[in-house]
Formats: sequence, structure tokens, C-alpha cells
Amino acid sequence: MLDKIYVALIHYPIKGKDGSIISTAVTNLDVHDIARTARTYNLKGYYVVTNLKAQRDMVEKMLKFWREGFGSQYNPSRAESLKLVRLKPYLEDVLEDIENIEKERPLILFTSAKKRENSVSFEEAKKIILETEKPVLILLGTGWGLPDEILVISDYVIEPIRGKSDFNHLSVRAAAAIIIDRLIGENYTRRD
Amino acid sequence: MLDKIYVALIHYPIKGKDGSIISTAVTNLDVHDIARTARTYNLKGYYVVTNLKAQRDMVEKMLKFWREGFGSQYNPSRAESLKLVRLKPYLEDVLEDIENIEKERPLILFTSAKKRENSVSFEEAKKIILETEKPVLILLGTGWGLPDEILVISDYVIEPIRGKSDFNHLSVRAAAAIIIDRLIGENYTRRD
Repeated sequence: MLDKIYVALIHYPIKGKDGSIISTAVTNLDVHDIARTARTYNLKGYYVVTNLKAQRDMVEKMLKFWREGFGSQYNPSRAESLKLVRLKPYLEDVLEDIENIEKERPLILFTSAKKRENSVSFEEAKKIILETEKPVLILLGTGWGLPDEILVISDYVIEPIRGKSDFNHLSVRAAAAIIIDRLIGENYTRRD
Repeated sequence: MLDKIYVALIHYPIKGKDGSIISTAVTNLDVHDIARTARTYNLKGYYVVTNLKAQRDMVEKMLKFWREGFGSQYNPSRAESLKLVRLKPYLEDVLEDIENIEKERPLILFTSAKKRENSVSFEEAKKIILETEKPVLILLGTGWGLPDEILVISDYVIEPIRGKSDFNHLSVRAAAAIIIDRLIGENYTRRD
């Protein structure tokens, strides 16, 4: 079902450069860019997940400016995309929120720049999304990627973008755009 | 030919909010993100085009930090992608530079978020790129888009991403990623 797809950008728990678990800082343009992509492809929600309250407060202020403040008059399309953003401390809160909305736990799709065993191709993932009755949650990592503790609770791992390339260091803003385009493409344009 | 594709991000001449011709400011993350995408898809060069010398000087400093300074040790993959970046004042300089390298003028592909007459689909554009012997230059706009004076010197106009959607306000970072993925995808991975 293309009409209940959610995306979440995870800032904790995240792998650090040395493999330890860290919180990454929220990048302002990640909030804007992925919200704009999400709105363009008619996703139902975009969760920005950070366990750090100061970071959530900062994003909250920015959202207020664009949704209600001067920004909403200056650039109404920005307000429209940022309406999709929801701030949550933990992935568990995201799952709970989606379950409240959809009355069902979402299928969790894990993404990674690294090739892993048992991953599904984009074609397969697209088919899964089209055929399932369940809501779908696409997880995006920051820093050095999503940790194994998130992998184990995911339903599917999507193959890396450019799996055969020797260089795969896309920004998460670019990766999010490509992943969402490959999974939805021109298929779903109706808006309720 | 997938091995001589270039991309250019234009900051002048650009359409302003009121339709007049303006110079937009260079956004730091546009340089990084599109360089990372260009390198991941093995493009041959990424031109950042701005007529403002102060802006070129600023980008030059940033490039130096990542290519030669502390940044090159801290994050070598960033150095590798930023190697693709070339700064030019005008589109004419880009065309001249490509002509010097390839001994041939490139095919110019114009992109836009607006539906235009005689545009080619992504499938058609992909075929054109695969079949031509010429180098290819993909143009990306900033601000409110590329002006008609650039349209008239272009060889092809590519249809908008999400042409049927009521909302098409992708960031140029996301649009660049989707356009390059749709035109190249997994096809070309070899690196000389």
C-alpha cells in the first residue's frame, strides 16, 4: 500500500566512526530536504529521531518558524512539507505512534550503504510495499550507519544503492531521495 | 556513453522569485552532496557555476580544506568526491572546459521542475546518453530555476521528476540524486 509509507531518520542509536554507539547531531537540511522529498512522493510522515532533548527543542523551533511563523508566508510549500515532520526520542516511540495511527505495527525496512546477507533488491522491496496491507516504515541512518540492534528488529534489509560500485558515500539527503524514488517512482500521486 | 557525463549547478543566470534574473548564493552542502552523488555514479566532473568571485573564493577555500588540508586525512572519501568539483564563472566556461577535455562540445540536458513542451522522458534521456558518442552535460538550477536563455541553447529538456504530482519542491540535492540515478542507475560502475 503506497498510501501509508513513513520514513524515519535515526540519530540514536547510531554507529560512530570507531564502531561504538553514538548520538549524531541533527543537520538542519536533513529535516528540510527529506521532508520535501517525503511530501513530493506523498509519504504519510517523516520522523526525526533523536534522544537528545536540546536537539529536539532546536528542531521544534525551526519547525515553528516555517509552519507558523514568518516562514509560512514567505515559503508556503516549505510549511506544507514540514507538516509531515514528527520529532521522537526513540524508534520505539515511532513504532508506537504509527501503531496508534494505523492500528497496526509497520513493516520495518532497514537501509544501509553496506552489502548484507539476505537483503532484498529494490524491485523486491517495491513489490513488498505494493502488496502488503500493512503500513511501511523506511529507516535511514546517519553517522556511520544503523546498528545491528536495529537490524534485528527490522523485517527487510534493502540492498545498497550502487551495490557494485567501489564508492558509496552518498549523503543521507541524496540516499533518501534515491531510495524513495526507487520504491515509489511515478506510481503514487493521488493525495487525499 | 556513460563515461563522459558531467553535471553543472548553475547560480547565475537564475530565475528569482519575481521572474527577474539573479545570482543565487552557493550552498555549502550543494557542493558536498552533489559531488558525493557524482562520484558514487562515476560522473567525470561537477561544475559549480557562479559569476560572483567572492563566492568562488569561498568555495575554493572549502575545497582546499577537504582536498589538501585536515579534512583530507579526517575524511578521505570526501576528498575523493570533491576532486570532481570545478569552479567556473559562466556556463560558457563550462562548455569550453569540456570541449578542451573531450575535443567535442557536450550534449546539453536541461532539467526543470516545470512541465515543458517537447521534453523527453527519463527513459528517452537514458537511451540518448547510452547511444551518443558525445560527452553529456546535465544542467541543474538553483533559486526558481534555469532561465529561458539557457533553455534555448540546450539540446534536450528532461521531463520533471514526479510530473503528475501536485507538489514538486525537491531540494536540488535530492533532485540531482534522483536525476542521476534515473539516468545511470546501476549501469555504470567501472572506474579507470
